[in-house]
Parts: sequence; C-alpha cells; structure tokens
Amino acid sequence: MDKEFLEDLLNKVKQGTLDIAEAMDCLKSLPFEDLGFAKIDHHRSLRTGFPEVVFCQGKQPYQVVEIIEKLLAKNNNILATRAGADTFEAVSMKCPDAKYHELARCITVERKSGHKFKSPVLVVSAGTADLPVAEEAAVTAEIMGNTVKRLYDVGVAGIHRLFYHKSLLNEAAVIIVVAGMEGALASVIGGLVDVPVVAVPTSVGYGTGTGGFAALLAMLNSCASGLAVVNIDNGFGAAAMASSIIRLKEGT
Amino acid sequence: MDKEFLEDLLNKVKQGTLDIAEAMDCLKSLPFEDLGFAKIDHHRSLRTGFPEVVFCQGKQPYQVVEIIEKLLAKNNNILATRAGADTFEAVSMKCPDAKYHELARCITVERKSGHKFKSPVLVVSAGTADLPVAEEAAVTAEIMGNTVKRLYDVGVAGIHRLFYHKSLLNEAAVIIVVAGMEGALASVIGGLVDVPVVAVPTSVGYGTGTGGFAALLAMLNSCASGLAVVNIDNGFGAAAMASSIIRLKEGT
Amino acid sequence: MDKEFLEDLLNKVKQGTLDIAEAMDCLKSLPFEDLGFAKIDHHRSLRTGFPEVVFCQGKQPYQVVEIIEKLLAKNNNILATRAGADTFEAVSMKCPDAKYHELARCITVERKSGHKFKSPVLVVSAGTADLPVAEEAAVTAEIMGNTVKRLYDVGVAGIHRLFYHKSLLNEAAVIIVVAGMEGALASVIGGLVDVPVVAVPTSVGYGTGTGGFAALLAMLNSCASGLAVVNIDNGFGAAAMASSIIRLKEGT
Amino acid sequence: MDKEFLEDLLNKVKQGTLDIAEAMDCLKSLPFEDLGFAKIDHHRSLRTGFPEVVFCQGKQPYQVVEIIEKLLAKNNNILATRAGADTFEAVSMKCPDAKYHELARCITVERKSGHKFKSPVLVVSAGTADLPVAEEAAVTAEIMGNTVKRLYDVGVAGIHRLFYHKSLLNEAAVIIVVAGMEGALASVIGGLVDVPVVAVPTSVGYGTGTGGFAALLAMLNSCASGLAVVNIDNGFGAAAMASSIIRLKEGT
Amino acid sequence: MDKEFLEDLLNKVKQGTLDIAEAMDCLKSLPFEDLGFAKIDHHRSLRTGFPEVVFCQGKQPYQVVEIIEKLLAKNNNILATRAGADTFEAVSMKCPDAKYHELARCITVERKSGHKFKSPVLVVSAGTADLPVAEEAAVTAEIMGNTVKRLYDVGVAGIHRLFYHKSLLNEAAVIIVVAGMEGALASVIGGLVDVPVVAVPTSVGYGTGTGGFAALLAMLNSCASGLAVVNIDNGFGAAAMASSIIRLKEGT
Amino acid sequence: MDKEFLEDLLNKVKQGTLDIAEAMDCLKSLPFEDLGFAKIDHHRSLRTGFPEVVFCQGKQPYQVVEIIEKLLAKNNNILATRAGADTFEAVSMKCPDAKYHELARCITVERKSGHKFKSPVLVVSAGTADLPVAEEAAVTAEIMGNTVKRLYDVGVAGIHRLFYHKSLLNEAAVIIVVAGMEGALASVIGGLVDVPVVAVPTSVGYGTGTGGFAALLAMLNSCASGLAVVNIDNGFGAAAMASSIIRLKEGT
Amino acid sequence: MDKEFLEDLLNKVKQGTLDIAEAMDCLKSLPFEDLGFAKIDHHRSLRTGFPEVVFCQGKQPYQVVEIIEKLLAKNNNILATRAGADTFEAVSMKCPDAKYHELARCITVERKSGHKFKSPVLVVSAGTADLPVAEEAAVTAEIMGNTVKRLYDVGVAGIHRLFYHKSLLNEAAVIIVVAGMEGALASVIGGLVDVPVVAVPTSVGYGTGTGGFAALLAMLNSCASGLAVVNIDNGFGAAAMASSIIRLKEGT
Amino acid sequence: MDKEFLEDLLNKVKQGTLDIAEAMDCLKSLPFEDLGFAKIDHHRSLRTGFPEVVFCQGKQPYQVVEIIEKLLAKNNNILATRAGADTFEAVSMKCPDAKYHELARCITVERKSGHKFKSPVLVVSAGTADLPVAEEAAVTAEIMGNTVKRLYDVGVAGIHRLFYHKSLLNEAAVIIVVAGMEGALASVIGGLVDVPVVAVPTSVGYGTGTGGFAALLAMLNSCASGLAVVNIDNGFGAAAMASSIIRLKEGT
Repeated sequence: MDKEFLEDLLNKVKQGTLDIAEAMDCLKSLPFEDLGFAKIDHHRSLRTGFPEVVFCQGKQPYQVVEIIEKLLAKNNNILATRAGADTFEAVSMKCPDAKYHELARCITVERKSGHKFKSPVLVVSAGTADLPVAEEAAVTAEIMGNTVKRLYDVGVAGIHRLFYHKSLLNEAAVIIVVAGMEGALASVIGGLVDVPVVAVPTSVGYGTGTGGFAALLAMLNSCASGLAVVNIDNGFGAAAMASSIIRLKEGT
Repeated sequence: MDKEFLEDLLNKVKQGTLDIAEAMDCLKSLPFEDLGFAKIDHHRSLRTGFPEVVFCQGKQPYQVVEIIEKLLAKNNNILATRAGADTFEAVSMKCPDAKYHELARCITVERKSGHKFKSPVLVVSAGTADLPVAEEAAVTAEIMGNTVKRLYDVGVAGIHRLFYHKSLLNEAAVIIVVAGMEGALASVIGGLVDVPVVAVPTSVGYGTGTGGFAALLAMLNSCASGLAVVNIDNGFGAAAMASSIIRLKEGT
Repeated sequence: MDKEFLEDLLNKVKQGTLDIAEAMDCLKSLPFEDLGFAKIDHHRSLRTGFPEVVFCQGKQPYQVVEIIEKLLAKNNNILATRAGADTFEAVSMKCPDAKYHELARCITVERKSGHKFKSPVLVVSAGTADLPVAEEAAVTAEIMGNTVKRLYDVGVAGIHRLFYHKSLLNEAAVIIVVAGMEGALASVIGGLVDVPVVAVPTSVGYGTGTGGFAALLAMLNSCASGLAVVNIDNGFGAAAMASSIIRLKEGT
Repeated sequence: MDKEFLEDLLNKVKQGTLDIAEAMDCLKSLPFEDLGFAKIDHHRSLRTGFPEVVFCQGKQPYQVVEIIEKLLAKNNNILATRAGADTFEAVSMKCPDAKYHELARCITVERKSGHKFKSPVLVVSAGTADLPVAEEAAVTAEIMGNTVKRLYDVGVAGIHRLFYHKSLLNEAAVIIVVAGMEGALASVIGGLVDVPVVAVPTSVGYGTGTGGFAALLAMLNSCASGLAVVNIDNGFGAAAMASSIIRLKEGT
Repeated sequence: MDKEFLEDLLNKVKQGTLDIAEAMDCLKSLPFEDLGFAKIDHHRSLRTGFPEVVFCQGKQPYQVVEIIEKLLAKNNNILATRAGADTFEAVSMKCPDAKYHELARCITVERKSGHKFKSPVLVVSAGTADLPVAEEAAVTAEIMGNTVKRLYDVGVAGIHRLFYHKSLLNEAAVIIVVAGMEGALASVIGGLVDVPVVAVPTSVGYGTGTGGFAALLAMLNSCASGLAVVNIDNGFGAAAMASSIIRLKEGT
Repeated sequence: MDKEFLEDLLNKVKQGTLDIAEAMDCLKSLPFEDLGFAKIDHHRSLRTGFPEVVFCQGKQPYQVVEIIEKLLAKNNNILATRAGADTFEAVSMKCPDAKYHELARCITVERKSGHKFKSPVLVVSAGTADLPVAEEAAVTAEIMGNTVKRLYDVGVAGIHRLFYHKSLLNEAAVIIVVAGMEGALASVIGGLVDVPVVAVPTSVGYGTGTGGFAALLAMLNSCASGLAVVNIDNGFGAAAMASSIIRLKEGT
Repeated sequence: MDKEFLEDLLNKVKQGTLDIAEAMDCLKSLPFEDLGFAKIDHHRSLRTGFPEVVFCQGKQPYQVVEIIEKLLAKNNNILATRAGADTFEAVSMKCPDAKYHELARCITVERKSGHKFKSPVLVVSAGTADLPVAEEAAVTAEIMGNTVKRLYDVGVAGIHRLFYHKSLLNEAAVIIVVAGMEGALASVIGGLVDVPVVAVPTSVGYGTGTGGFAALLAMLNSCASGLAVVNIDNGFGAAAMASSIIRLKEGT
Repeated sequence: MDKEFLEDLLNKVKQGTLDIAEAMDCLKSLPFEDLGFAKIDHHRSLRTGFPEVVFCQGKQPYQVVEIIEKLLAKNNNILATRAGADTFEAVSMKCPDAKYHELARCITVERKSGHKFKSPVLVVSAGTADLPVAEEAAVTAEIMGNTVKRLYDVGVAGIHRLFYHKSLLNEAAVIIVVAGMEGALASVIGGLVDVPVVAVPTSVGYGTGTGGFAALLAMLNSCASGLAVVNIDNGFGAAAMASSIIRLKEGT
C-alpha cells in the first residue's frame, strides 16, 4: 500500500499532476514506516508461524481473552506467558485449541506450522524450584520453532549428575542455564562448553537470596566466557535470545 | 599420553601383568581430564590462532610480562586486556611484535593466523566516553577471528544518527551495544533488528549513574527481545559471547 | 479577618487605647500566616476551580467520604487519587456527581468551572501496563484545567510507532513520559523535542525491574536535556509539574 | 542541501530522467534526517547564540581543546562543564576570549549574542558546599540566555534566612533548588511557591549522605507539588530544564 | 534474696561452717545478677508504675494474652504495642481494665499509678498517614509517666501551619518528630528549637519512598544539630528515648 | 553395581572377550559417579541414619508427600524443613510415624537409629521471635545425631541472663547463635568462648531491620574470631555446619 | 534595632505620621526574624561561650582561615571539625591561641569562658580505630561546656573490660557510644543503663562493613531502649545531642 | 592474684577482721574478670605459642612498631595482618626476627613454639587475584599451629583442575575456599566434601562484582551444606574459624 502510494506519488510528479513542492511536503509527512523501516513492525508475521506474545501478569483473564481473540483474527500463533489456570480457562472457552503448559504457566495456540530448526537448544536447571522458569524458556523456544532438550535438577551441590549427562551439553547449539540460589551452575557449564550460554537467574531462595539478586550477580560476574545474562525469572527472554542465535545459525 | 596410559593399562590387564584390583584403583585415581573432559582444558589451543587471554588489572607490568612469555613459549596468540601503557612498554621489550590498542587498553600478539569469520560483528556505542569499552570489545572480537564493524557515538539523545546508519545494523550478524548513562540504546537497537544483541553497560556517568548500575538495570529490563547482557564494562565478555555465536553460525 | 485584626490593632495604637509595648507583643505572637504568607494556605481556593487533592491510598472508603464531604462544604472541586472502586462507590452515595476514572483510579468532582489552558500537555506511555499511571497524570492535568492529549503504547521496542506520531510531539507544550521497564522512552523523546519533558518511572516490571528503580535510574541518567523526573508511579506529581509550567506560560 | 537533493530527485522524475523504481530506492535509503527530523540535529544552531555543550569530566585538556576548536570553527557559543583549571589554561591558549567560572568549573565562549529572556530563573542553594553545583546551574542558565538570580546558603536549619528573602522567591519564574545533606530545602520552597521547581540533589555529605542519595530520595518523595528532580550534582541538567520552561513561557 | 544468700555465705565462712575453697567456688558460680548488676533486670519494677512492654507483631492473640496474664500476676502496668483489634479483644476478655488505643495500635493496662513528669514531651507529625506511629509514641510516652502534647499534620509543604504553633515548640522539653515521605520536618524543627529532638522516620510513601528509607536518610543527614534518630516506624523507641531524657531532667 | 561393572569389564578384557578399544570407549563414557566420586551421591545413605532433607517452602503438600514416600521406600530417615501444618497433615496420613515440630516448622521421620554424637551443640537465641529459626537448627542437629542443648531468650539488652548460664556456653563443643534485630549476640558470645560459633541472622525486625540484613551485616563484621555465618533464617544450614564440625571432632 | 524599628513604627502610627495602610504594608514586608523568630539566628551568641562551628571537610585551609577570622571578629569561641594538620597550621598563623586536637581532627579557640555543666557525658568507644570519631565527640562536648569522661577500647569481643568500668557507666548522665564493625556495643550498653544513649556508627571496617552501614543498621535495630542514633562518623552530632540533653537537665 | 585476693577476703571474714557488710561491698565492686570470666582475657596467653594479632590497616608503621614492641615485651608470638612493606621495614628494625609474608601482607614473629596440629587445613583459591586473601588465611592458620595445604587457581571455569586434585580435598579436615567474581567454587567444593567448609568472598572483580558482594551473596545462598561464610576479604577470620574447629577436633 505504502509502496503503491509512493509509486502513485512519483507517477503524479512525472505526469505533472503533482507539484514538486507538494510532493516534498507529502514525503516529509509520510508515516515513518512507509520509508523503509516498515519491516520492523511486521517482520514477525512475515516469518511463517512465529508467535505473537502476550505477557499476562497484571492482566485480568478477560483482557487476555480479548487480546488473544484479536490476534487470532489475524490467524497468528500465540504464546501467552505468566498465565494462571483461570486465565487459561477463560481463553480455552473462546479458543478450544489453546494448550496450557501448567508448570511453565504458558498458553500456546499453534495454527500455522512454522519453520522448525534442528540445532538443539538445551535448557538446564539447577533445582526443582527453578522449573517454572525453565519450562517458560523451553515452551517459548519450542513455539519459536526450536528443537528443545531439557536437563533438570543438576545443581552444583551434586555436580556429578551434570557430568553424567555431558553428551547433552556437548550436542547443544545453545544452552539456557536456569538457576536461583547462588547461580553457580551457569559458571560451571560456561566452563565446560564452547557454545553460547544464556543464563537466567531465578528468584528462588530466601534470606539474602530473595528476589534472585544473588544469582544475577553471580552470573554477571561469571569467570566463564561466552555467557550472557537476562533478567531474573525471564525464561521468555532467554528463549528469545537463544532463538535469535539459532535463526542466525540456520540462516532462516 | 593418557590414551596410551589407558591402553597400556588394559593391555597389562589382558596380559595378566596387572591385577584387576590394582587396575581398578588406578582407574579410580586417574586424573579427571584423562577420561573424556580433557578437551576442556585444551580446546582453545586446538582451534588454530585462538588467543590466550590475560586480564592485567591488578597485576604489575613484570607479572604480565612473565605470563606472556610463558604463553608465547607455547606459540600462542595473546590478548591482554585492561593493560596500561606501562604494561605495554614492559611487554614490548620482551616481545617486539606486541601491538598496543591504546583506546581499548589491550595488547595483542598474533603469531599464528587463525580462522577468519565473515559474518560481521557490529560494535555500537552511545557516547565518546564509552569508547574504551567498545574498543575492548572490538579488539577482542577481531583477535578471535571476527570481521568487526564499528558504529560509534549514536546515543538515543540524537537518535536520527542511528537511523542514518541502518544498513550497518541490518547487515550485522551479531550486534554488541555499549552504553553508559541510561543505557537506552540497547533497547532501541534491540527493537530494530532480528539478530542477537549483546548489551554492555558501562560505568560512564555520575550521580546515580556512578558505576554503571543504571545502564545495567535498563538493559536487563529491556522490552526488546533477543537481547542479553554482560557485566558492567565487560567489553571482553561481550566479544566472547558474540564470537561463540559467530562460531556456531559459521560452523567452525 | 487577620487583616481586620491588624487594622484594628493599628487603629487602637493610633487612638492610644493600646500601649505600644502591648502592641509589639501582639505583633510578635501573631499567627504566621497573618503576616504575608497567608496566600500559601489559600492560594488554591483563590484560583477558581483548582481542585483539592485527596490521596486515598491507605485510607478507608468512609474516611475518604468524610474528607470529601468537608471539602465540598467549601464548594471546591475535588481530585481523589489512588481510589479503588469501593471508595468511589462510597463517595458517589454522598456525592452523586462524582465521576470515576477507573483506569486512572481517580475520582473527580467538578463544581466550579476553572480557567482552561490551551497549550497542550501530551501524556506519552510506553506499554499498556503503564496506563494507570499515565491516566492518573492525564486526569490530574485535565482537572487542573489543561488541554490533555494522549499517545499510548509507543515503547522504544517499536520505535517507529513513536515517529509515526511526531506531529503530536511537535505540537505539545509539555510532555509527560510514563514508562516502566527500562524507561528508555524518556530519553528518546527528550532527544526529539525542545519543550520541557517530565518523566515518570513506573513500577511495571519484574526481576530487577521490580519497584521501578531501573526506570527511575534510566530517567535520572538520561543524556537528553530539558528533562526532569518525579517519583515512581507519581502520575499526579508529573501533572502538577506540567500544570505549573503551563500556568507560567499562559500567565494565569 | 538535502532539500535540494529532494527537489532535484523529483525534478528528474518529472523530467523522466530518473526511473520511478530508482527514485523509490533513493527515497528509501535517504538519510533519516532529510525527511523531517533534520531539525533535531541542528535546532541548536538555528536558535542564535545557543551554546554547544562539552562535558569535560574524564577528558584530557588537549581533547577538550580539540573539540572546542572544531565547534568554534562553526562559529558557535560554547559551554564546557566540569572543567578543571588546567583544562581552562589549555583552552585559553587557543581561544583567548574563553572565560573561566572557577566555582562552577565551567568554561564559556560567547561569540554570538543570543536571545535574552526576561523571566528570572532563581538558583537557591542550601549550604556553601553546594555552591559548585549551584554555580554550574547558574552559569548554564545564563549562557542559555536567562536572567539568573542567586539566593545561596539558606538551608532549612536556619529557615528564617529563607523567609527573609521571600520576595526573590515570589518574583522567580522558575526556581532551581540545589541541596545536599537531607535535601529538605526543595520541599520547603516547593511548599511556598506556585512556579515550577527543579530540584538538584548534591553529593555533599558524609556517612549515609555520601553520594547524594539521601538528598535525591528526599526530593523524589517531596510532599510539595510542582517539583521535579534531576540527577545528583546535575546543575547543567537543571538549568537546561529551567531554560526549556522559560523558552516555552516567552515563546521563543 | 541474693543479698541474703551472700550474707548467709559470708556468715557461714565466718562461723567456719563453710570452707574457704567451697566458698570461692560458690562465689565464682554465682548467677551474675547477684553481684551488682541485679538492678538491670529489675530496675523497671523498682520504679513504681513503669510498664512492662509486649511487642505483639508476629504473635498470636492467645500468646499475647498468656504473656500479659503472667505480667499482671506480678501486678505490673502493661504496654502492648503493634496490637491488632483481635488481640485487644482477646486480652480484654481476661483483663477487662485493658484499654485499646486504636490509632496507636496499643493496649495499656495501668494498675499502679507511677510517677508523673511535668516537662512536656511534644509529638509532632507531618501527615495524617504518620498518625499511627505518632500515636504509638504518644501513648508510650504517656504510660511512661510523661506529659504529652500533640501537634499533628504540620508537614513542610505547608510550613506556616508549623509556625502558627511555635509556642508549643518553644514550651516542649523534648520533641519527637514523626515524618515519612521526605522527612524534612525533622530538619526544620531541629533548626527552630534548642531542646533535644528525636526523629522517627515512617514507612509512609510509595515508589522510592517505600519502606521509609528516604525519610531515614534525610533525618540522619539533617543539618540541624541536637537531633538523633530511631528506627523506621519505631514510635515506641522514640518515646523511650524521650522518656529517659525527661527522667534525667526531673531527676527521678 | 558400578564396582561390579568395572570388575566385569576388566575381567572381560583379561579373558579377551572384550577388545581393548571397546573397553576404552566404555571407560570414557562411563557415568561419572562410577569413577571415584560416587560417594558424593550416596555418602549420606552410607552413614546409618543420616536424614534425607526436603525443603518444603514453595511446594504443595501433595508434592511433599510424594517425595517423602519415594525416600521412605529406600528406608531413609527424613527431615522436612519449612513445612506448614497442612503439609504435616498430608504427610501423616501416608506416614503415621512422622512427627511434627510445630515451632521449628519441621517434619521428621526416624526409622533407622543413626550414630549419636556426644559433644553438645548449643543453640542460643536472642528473642522469642527468633525461636522458629532456632528450633529449625535444633531439630536438624538432633536428627543428624547430635546432643543438642538450648539457651533461649538471652539477647544483649539483658546480657546478665546470658552470663547466668555461662556454664552452658563453656561446655558446648559448637555454638549456634540465632539472632535478628541488631544481631549483637553473636559477637558477645564469640568473645566469651573458644569453640566454633555459627551465627544465623534472622529476618525478625521491622523498618531497617526488615529481612535480616542488619543482623547479617553485624555478624559478618563481628570483631570476635572463630565465628562464621550462614544465610538469613537458615537454621538448617547452621545445624549442618555444626554437624560437620562435630563429625570431624568425633571421628565418624 | 528591629525592636527599635517596630517601636518607631508604632510610635509613628500613634503620632499619626504614618498611615495605617502604610504601616500594614511595612509590617507585611518586614524581614521574618524581626517578628519573633529572631532568637533562632542569634541564640548561640546569647548563651555565653557557646562555639561557632566550622565544618572543614572539602574546604581549603585558606577558606577556613577566612571564616574563622570573621567569626573571631565577633569575639566568639570556635570549633572547627574535620580539620587536617595543614588547616591548623594556616589557622594558627592568624590565631595563635587556636588549639589543635590531632586525634579528633578539631581546632578550638576558646576566648569567652562559657557556662560549665556538671553532669558527666561519657564517651565510650569500641576499638582504637574508632578514636577519631570518639574524640570529635569528646572535644565537641567539652567546648560546649560539658564535663566529659572517656572509656575507650571496650568492644564486645572483650566484654569484661566494659563491666570492669561499670561505675563510669552508672555515673554518666548521657552516654555517647562510638562503634564501627558490628556496632554491638551500643546495644550492650543500652541494656545496662537507664540514661539516654546516643549511638554513633563509624566507618571503621572493610568488606561488608565498609562505610559504616553494618554498624548503623545494628544501632537502629537495637533491642535496647532509650537509645537514638546519629549519622555515620558524626561525632559532632552526637555531642550536640548530648549537649542539648545536658542543657535541658541543668536548666541553662 | 585475684584468686589470692578472694582467699584473703574470705580469710579476713573468717577471722572476723572484715565485717560482712564490708565484704559484700568488696565482692560487688570486684572487677568482673576476677569472678570467673578472667579466662576470657588471658586465654590466649595460656595456650602456649598462640599469637597476638595486630590489624595494621589504617595504622601508621610507627604505631604498629609500638604495639608490637609492647606485645613482645610479654614474650608473645605475633601476627600482624594487612601490613605493607613499609610497615614491615619499620618493624624489622626493632625486631630483626620478624618475617614478612609479602603476598599475604602479613608479618609474623614466632618466639615460643606452640602446639602443632596434624589435621590438614586446606586453603583453596579460585583465581590468582584471590591469592593475597588466600595467603592471609594460610599464614594465619600456620602461626595458629595448623598444618596448612594450598590448592590455588582452581576456579570453576576450569573445573577439571579441581577434580584432578580431589585427593587433597578428600584428606582435608577443614577447607577454606577463597573466591571472588561469582564465588561458585565454594558451592562446588561444598558439594564434593563432607568436612566443614569456610568460605571467604574476595573483593576481586569489577562492575557489579566490585567489593565482593556478588561472591558473598553466592556463598550465603550456596545450596551445599556444611558451609559457613566470613566477611569479604577476611582471610584471617576464616583461618580463626578453621583453627577453632581443628582445636576442637584435636582436643587441645
């Protein structure tokens, strides 16, 4: 449309039906996206099957339902994060093919089958209490088209369990490490592998660990290299980072 | 060697010159690296040309010289970060082919030509005061074999300068964003591109910005996706993360 | 009254019915406001229609009702902020012309029509979760007599949406920027306009963003100039600042 | 130039010497500033006499000299903040009409006489130790064309001194309050006046006051309205905010 | 009793019925309080009417009842702080003469009339939200025997109200200043009077003021002298400090 | 089993039924724990009676029941910490010999009688509000086989009570000091004894003491020597540290 | 003078030479201090011998000299705190009777002999590193006319030393407790005495104790009553508080 | 002496030369240490060879010399920590047998040979930058009579190096883990061993790691058990804790 508008404008100039001064005014006041950045807004829908994301925390179930209905009208895949059971219940009444990932607190609707990437994204978690965040990462990475593997409950206090599964570590293309408490797992894994590691501190803990700052600081100060960090409890963000790395690798 | 040791041991068992109980004791007390994790220690030297890294902060010039001499004896490439002019002076007396990157405060010695990657790593910085960190990232990425492009001084207070160079953003495979003060540049770039963004907060600023925490928090809380963060002023860490992404992409 | 008291005193001195020493004692012990600062207390009621403000957080509905009844007895306009639906319900029983602004969590009663200013105050918000604070600012600015325009959901992760509406930015006399998360929007807008920008960090976010400190620090460290900051979630305060700027401009 | 380029392009289309498809490519890749935001970059030079600003902290004297020489080549007025005596010495050798404001640690060069605003900007400071920041604000406001008045050393521990000068408070159009320690002065003044107050916390203090956080928090939590805050020690920023308010008021 | 024990011991030594070695062992293992510090434990019951204090926060109503019953068995006056209405209800069933101070969240039982001090303790508060803490201070000071005066709602944003009541300030022997938000009231009062000021920050506020740290820091950094601070919301502690000053003054 | 596997492997090599190359592959891919670190995983079950530990916070009662059932199937003793009454109720239905320590919020099941240590572990607490943490420490130490003594409510504000019981202090082999508020008790005890002191800060307090940081910092900065600290409220961790010291002493 | 002005004004009114309206204008615009608060400014000089205070930190020696010369011209006693040896040297050249208290870093000049109070102020310090702050308190209290006693180096790690001197504690009218590290001494002393205790945290320490926050928090959270706190290292402030208590007691 | 005094007193009572009332007064005013706590003060000198400790930080060389001379007059062993080379130089002039441990920044004088313990204390450090703290711990433990082993530079980023030396870990009686950056080493070692682990965070790092808080938090939140923590950089404190554990074990 914008392209057509531009063509039309230039044609009018060519035909002399539009004054050059008027044309210049038009060009200056054109909406920004018409001039080359338009892909920003719509790049997602251009990649088949990439989901629209709804962050449910702080939203009423009915509000989430409304948003999802609008998005589905455009026939998109959906990922709703931080969604409680009541939100899912409300969503599933309007959208029976919605699927609830209870542990991950995510709702997914997948209507178009998107591109599937082969390089494995490995999600590793330290303790059972980190599972909701780990699963948010895993479910997010899956609906973004990735092949996801899980390696859970391998905290550094029982580090041999981690070594037992070293083949999983060695085969991964990107590793997401989810850990609360002292967050040491990210450093240990970062020291064992060559691939990019995305570390997610979790707010699991008590006392000085409350809120996840101990794990966050540990990960930011890791002496391992090839490791970067996302916000506390941000499983979604880690999966998005991992996904952008995999897309880069597989060239989609 | 370890492999030979293992073969020898098994041969001795086979030949009956080593008791099974004794063999079991040997196996249990074998150094860990002999049993499959050895690659961890030496993986760097196995990739031609990958540098050994020396963190100079808090080390005396003569200590840095000593370390570098030992590493060069094994014929490695070297990257020394956080190196003052006096350290370089001391190093260059023993190692005349050492090169000093003044702004980056880095010393490099490059004796083996390593693999060169083609996918561009773009280093973007917000202000002139962020340059030392940006250059540490750039120099690090270069000696790790990357094709590095620089886009400096494009802070959000004059955001049109950033847009002027959008082709650089669009062509990059990985973008390292270096910013102090309010760190907003990372979010803006993260919203404009699809590729992985590694954000480096810098300790540039004063008042509440002292130490880089304002920029760090801004980056961790970015609403853009496909973005992860390294420690304040950690240009090296960002380049290492970018490098591991590029290696994954180019399959080396 | 106080004026009359003073006149009376001086008259008595003149007439000799009051001793000078006694008069001096009286003058020294006069209530402060009688001596020139009186306007402080009553300046609001002196400007027609300017509202009395009730901060409802931490107050019981019945307490708010009591306060509002007293204020209305003096025939004032009222703005009650941080008011829940139950508070409004209680208020509207006593005061049927009270109006509830649900999203803004504000109650307004407007009985005297005050002076209306023409210069537009633009309220910009980054995400949908910032709306309650943005609306608190907008409703406050309106009842203070301002012409308010709204530009919502233009966060920096989709910065072209902001540019699409640049005419709104260009026409505003004062801009209130409401943003949580990384708060980058304030810097971007501050870099685009010449007019005063009042930035309001919001407590929207999670992990390290909890409580709004990331956004606050980002705004305080903004590299844009002509920008000042109010407390986290203080939509009211931003509108009061904007209002005092507009009053200054329009000379009322 | 850009305008001419656009005209030229449209003329070529009109004349048929440029293909429409080619023209569209050109338009898409045009530098951003050519399309309506150009004023951002150059708006300062368009207002006669408005200074270019150099932040000297962390820069070597010779670097400041270089930057100032470049700026003067374009015939601008200059404000250099956080400049030590050695920086001034270096600058004055190349630029003999540079003037040093020792207390404010600012260098100014004023070659074009800019517009002078009449509405007084009042700079108030609490203690003598706050003077450098207060003077940075005052000098900045002056070179931006404002009529500046000063009211120093009127901290709340001797609050009657403040009241003694209430006429100054009453006549000001904008008040900049500079205070360290407990920062209470901003609240007291905010409660006495109707005009916009810009509060600057200073890093004056010791113990828990170190760094200015006590004053910053006090100002953000002020119960006075019509008050906003800039970063700790940011005298420049306060003056820039005040300036943008005065410009709005006087309609320049 | 202990005194008798000691006398008895020495008598036995004198009479030769206790061996010196045995006596020495006894003396070494005597409970500490028998040897001169005994007054520490019982000094309160020695001053007629001084209350026993129960801190109810985190205790179940039945637990508070149990503690109070034990204390009353020794015939003491009681002060129970941080007590909810349910706790009072439970207490009043066992102890019908218990009195509830709702705003102060305190329960008092006063059975012995203690010494009454004449020097006025003035409790000043900034805002209505500070009242619970102010009343905790006032009720505590009263049951400790003081003459308490109250001056509420005189925050610095309307500072003339404070001056209106300057006679109250001038007559007080000790002033307790209770303020949340920016806590400036303590500095202002500290600058107006010569008597000791005890400042109590309150956790009233939101955003950066949450928890009372802004007020605490303001009070610790006050530029007024003759002022000391107690913990956030510690109305009891301020009254205890004031009380110990009054006791010192009146020589009881 | 693993030992048998290893023996079997070596036997096969000896007998020639397993090729050396195949044997080497087996050895390299053996799970880590088979090669000498196995004791890590199972060391607890090897010491008769040592409990398995379940951290209940954040787990649903049914989840705790499931975990405990699995552990009991292996015939272990159990310690479940941070367990509410509802969790205990659920557990006791499946496991009638489970015992609830209400104050400590711990559930224990003791089926094998483990080794009992004789050296006394003394648990000292400052206030009644510290009891839950003190009891968690005491119950934990007991089920780990220690002889536990308790000395409660001996805070420094009534320090003679502590001295009265100095024999308890003198007889202890390890002392666990549990204190909130200002945490001074740890320093005082650390100055009185020669044995190791493990300090546990508690989150008892309000205002600046909220969360236990005041006590934590006090303990870390203690000028007493022979004292180390565990996380806030970590009664379990203190008991585990004390236990490992006692095991070392008694040589088990 | 002001008194005379007032009398004069009233006389003129009486004599009819001043119009009542004019008189009213005069009264309204009179400087504040003329109307009853004048004592605020000059109350110090009204009490014979009370010192003027100069805070030297951040001031050049010549600036301190200038200030002191002006003050001495009015014939005052002087207390200069935070003064280095170079400052003293400069001062003593102009003012040979200045006295330097090296450990306290204070300069005193005492020209008028003020009132001497008899009630002892006891300054207690925990460690030798706290001495500068303790001495600042002691020297300040002395020049304010107090009888000061010192009890140094009685930290809680060797608490028997404190008890050895219990008579000093028992005889004091006010106790200033100066302690860094964990600050426990304030709580211990607060628990032993009945008189007001003013606690001064010091910035003595390292690691988590850096800056004195551990001691500050410990003191604010003290479970002892009758204790209040001043800013870190604020020996002067503690002495001023103690002084105002003593003045109240002795009725001067 | 005190014992003799007591005996003498009792004898006088027995002989009737001392009145019982007088005797009681004497007993009450006896210095505390005479009554059973005396061992506190002198327990160190009672254990042969245990050193007196001097903390040199913030002390002038001549002050350290003075203190050491006094201590040596009593014929003690000495440990001076945080001592610079200049301090050692000054000390060695007066005390030629003083020994300087440069890396540990410790001075030792050992004149009496104390008891030597056999159980090994293992000091493990993560990086070369942690060595000063590790050596402070090692030197301290040695002069306290322990058998010290060192295992340096085994950070988790190269975790196989740690496993290579597992026999050292297995043989240790107490392990001191010294680590900065993310402090993960403490958790990993805590998970591998059964003996008590004393963790020392170091202030090694930059950005968010500055000051050692990241490592401290990681260690406090360790999921390993049998681990406690001392203050940042407190190598001495860790050794003192380890020493008290070893003394307990070996029964001295």
